[in-house]
Amino acid sequence: MTRQLSTTDRTTIRRGSAKARTERSDLYATLDAGLICHLGLLVDGSPRVLPTGYGRSGDTLYVHGSTGARSLREAAESVEVCVTVTHLDGIVYARSLFHHSANFRSAMIHGRARDVVDADEKWLALRVITDQLAPGSWQHSRQPNKRELAATAVIAVDLAEAAVKIRTGGPQDDVEDVAAGTAWAGVLPLRTRWGAPEPAADLSAEFEVPPHVSERKYPA
Amino acid sequence: MTRQLSTTDRTTIRRGSAKARTERSDLYATLDAGLICHLGLLVDGSPRVLPTGYGRSGDTLYVHGSTGARSLREAAESVEVCVTVTHLDGIVYARSLFHHSANFRSAMIHGRARDVVDADEKWLALRVITDQLAPGSWQHSRQPNKRELAATAVIAVDLAEAAVKIRTGGPQDDVEDVAAGTAWAGVLPLRTRWGAPEPAADLSAEFEVPPHVSERKYPA
Repeated sequence: MTRQLSTTDRTTIRRGSAKARTERSDLYATLDAGLICHLGLLVDGSPRVLPTGYGRSGDTLYVHGSTGARSLREAAESVEVCVTVTHLDGIVYARSLFHHSANFRSAMIHGRARDVVDADEKWLALRVITDQLAPGSWQHSRQPNKRELAATAVIAVDLAEAAVKIRTGGPQDDVEDVAAGTAWAGVLPLRTRWGAPEPAADLSAEFEVPPHVSERKYPA
Repeated sequence: MTRQLSTTDRTTIRRGSAKARTERSDLYATLDAGLICHLGLLVDGSPRVLPTGYGRSGDTLYVHGSTGARSLREAAESVEVCVTVTHLDGIVYARSLFHHSANFRSAMIHGRARDVVDADEKWLALRVITDQLAPGSWQHSRQPNKRELAATAVIAVDLAEAAVKIRTGGPQDDVEDVAAGTAWAGVLPLRTRWGAPEPAADLSAEFEVPPHVSERKYPA
């Protein structure tokens, strides 16, 4: 039995509903393939959208708080947030401008932010956030000391309420435009890959690039 | 004289202030290099973050309303929004996990959404949104008819209140970690490029890929 995403009013996708996905596996895949999320929350009554790192452990999303820390601290505890992860996979060129589109995968999570204070959970959260942004670094680099841990804010968001939307394939043109045959139609895919590692200026020239960097795949 | 970004409480970058940019040219460059934005707004009192297309004309940002249209219509007119455009340029590996970071360019715009209803302005808005997502298509593809125009929602946001944050370069490690020399440090750049165009299944095999697609550069 596959596990379905719960349906609430705000996770029911009304526009382009053919693109909505209802399997939890699509949610996990979309989140796990990402590098940054956009965290939305209210600050002094105004919406704010912050790009930041994240990681996942089971059905909990951990969001790195450094960029949102002040905003989160100023907001009330258990403030409502929306976390969106988007992959742009290509531009869809149609015969008409109206049917131009984009191929993409997006996950939108609604929930209340929980400040992670338990030491064990914070350690787990930092590990999964590291594994998402820089897999292998948790084992290779110096782990956080007490001072650094205290200076790092992490919030948790439950993955209970989420919407996943995926568009793939070519344009959906009107039949008259296809018949007219006056414009090109198709997809221009967007490819992302890692470039060559650039050692730090103050790194010994003999320090070889470790495999978790040199052999990193995209997505991880 | 260079034009400075205005400074308000919510555009004053407190964390990592070395990364804040105050020139309007940095705002334009960050926006003009992007393909999608994340539009944040309140729906029924909860934050929502929607990925969508956008374009710029001078100091006005036009945001494609299709994904946000229902949300925008449900919200009050001149609702407050936050539009964020983020480019992830690379992962910064430091000797310590604490100093791991990302190289990025981000622009965050705060303002009130204005529903674009004037026919001439809507036409301009659709042209700049098209030029951003699919440059050349405005000239090549069939332009919108009355029915399509009516079915398309566009909002305008003034670029008066904006914050730009840019991080470049290598890690900023603690001196003790540099001296210890036990971990690799440097940057793994993220490269994005266009793949080979994929003609639509129902396109005539003789239809050559037009230059605005085959020769498209990244960024545009």
